Amino acid sequence: MIIETQEDVTRAVLAEMHRTPDARTKELLEGLVKHLHAFIREVRLTDKEFQQAIGYLNAVGRHTTPSHNEAMLLSGALGVSNLVCLLNNPRPTQANNLGPFYRAGSPRCANGDSLLRSPTDGIPLVFKGWVKDREGRPIAGAEVDVWHSAPSGLYENQDPSQAEMNLRGTFTTGADGSFSFRSVKPAGYPVPTAGPTGALLRAQQRHNFRPAHLHFLIVRPGFKTIASQVYDPDDPHLETDSQFGVTQALIGNYRRREDGYSLEFTFVLEPGESARPQPPISAKRG
Amino acid sequence: MIIETQEDVTRAVLAEMHRTPDARTKELLEGLVKHLHAFIREVRLTDKEFQQAIGYLNAVGRHTTPSHNEAMLLSGALGVSNLVCLLNNPRPTQANNLGPFYRAGSPRCANGDSLLRSPTDGIPLVFKGWVKDREGRPIAGAEVDVWHSAPSGLYENQDPSQAEMNLRGTFTTGADGSFSFRSVKPAGYPVPTAGPTGALLRAQQRHNFRPAHLHFLIVRPGFKTIASQVYDPDDPHLETDSQFGVTQALIGNYRRREDGYSLEFTFVLEPGESARPQPPISAKRG
Repeated sequence: MIIETQEDVTRAVLAEMHRTPDARTKELLEGLVKHLHAFIREVRLTDKEFQQAIGYLNAVGRHTTPSHNEAMLLSGALGVSNLVCLLNNPRPTQANNLGPFYRAGSPRCANGDSLLRSPTDGIPLVFKGWVKDREGRPIAGAEVDVWHSAPSGLYENQDPSQAEMNLRGTFTTGADGSFSFRSVKPAGYPVPTAGPTGALLRAQQRHNFRPAHLHFLIVRPGFKTIASQVYDPDDPHLETDSQFGVTQALIGNYRRREDGYSLEFTFVLEPGESARPQPPISAKRG
Repeated sequence: MIIETQEDVTRAVLAEMHRTPDARTKELLEGLVKHLHAFIREVRLTDKEFQQAIGYLNAVGRHTTPSHNEAMLLSGALGVSNLVCLLNNPRPTQANNLGPFYRAGSPRCANGDSLLRSPTDGIPLVFKGWVKDREGRPIAGAEVDVWHSAPSGLYENQDPSQAEMNLRGTFTTGADGSFSFRSVKPAGYPVPTAGPTGALLRAQQRHNFRPAHLHFLIVRPGFKTIASQVYDPDDPHLETDSQFGVTQALIGNYRRREDGYSLEFTFVLEPGESARPQPPISAKRG
């Protein structure tokens, strides 16, 4: 159609969608266009702001590398990651953001193994987890990917001084549904601010810390795959996580031991589709 | 705050904005988060669709180079460029999308000069334009940037076989508000589909053509700067422009002459701020 008014633009874009063969694609794109246009009208975006937005959008992909996913980081900083997670998992849930640092292919481990693959300073941690179904029955044979940052605040993929796959490992639950590993207690850390996500945080005068946490990805055929994180209740940024990930259900209970800490946690899986997510990064920084 | 429900996520993100020092930045980001979260809730975005969206977003910047602006191209394909334009210019207006191919610094020309800087096949075109104020009085001394694609369908920045700045030039209106140039009549052309914008068009079974047009950017202190485009009324894609740019006010009136075409067009400027836009590209492809 030939456009005469600003209202016509939305009509024209929606009208051009009529050939879209996939119904879900059409639904998603219609929704996107309606909400995006409504946002622009509500704030009356200026020409200059539009040009700045274009530059911002391009910068997201430009800052993404095989070892860093800026779009995933930005999604967390806007609350999108956790919103999608909570929409797709019934309450209460242990599901949480996958986060930008999951890597596929971490080393297979036996229960009780250490995650340390190069010398890593820190307070020793012994972790024991259980994977159960809604009725509290143990789920044996679940694959549990575990990863976390070093007490320095860096994941191995960000840090050439750590060995490949340091603080990462894949465990299998036993007949009682449990898995266990040794590591060091993670610390809170600042997310990278060299890209557009950093600009967003600075514009809002927000800090860029995440409270200390451990990551999990739990896969078992017949159950809905969940990513999860278990948070440190004593972290000063627990209530102001820059990635909006902390939910009440995921605050852990660290216990002091003679030589460090122990932590136990139970994950409940719902029946559903088992599907590994697309890893947001593929490589370690050289 | 500690999150318990999916509704809490939006509350948490909005609550963290309270320190934003710039009121307009706060308004824009609040609006963005509300509409973005509303979109995600309305379509109930799945985990897998979210991961695909992350990949799509990163691909936009990855396909952007000094000679190609994918975010600008995508904005046009979603109707955003023209919506922003029409929101910021009172009706009726000759303002139109800047488009992804504007380059700063085109050669200064005298009225009547040719835009051809290397041999360019095509039907000769003589263009004469007027720049006037709302009362119909001529505006002398306006700078008019002109650019268009070759009849092959490629802008010089996309095409190593064309000379630097071929079919681009900057003119100055005379005492009667007029400017003029010689060139070749532009043809419609397909927009690039190697990036995410191409994926969007294919998913909707939309063609990727733009109807033939000439681009203008008109700058004069004391008047609101406008980008404009003048379209060919005989183009088969006039009503289905893949960039949603064609407005009734910008359909030109080509006249057949012995040796080609002539085209005359009058641009009306509103009082306002004179400000050159950020060029979406900076270089020619090598």
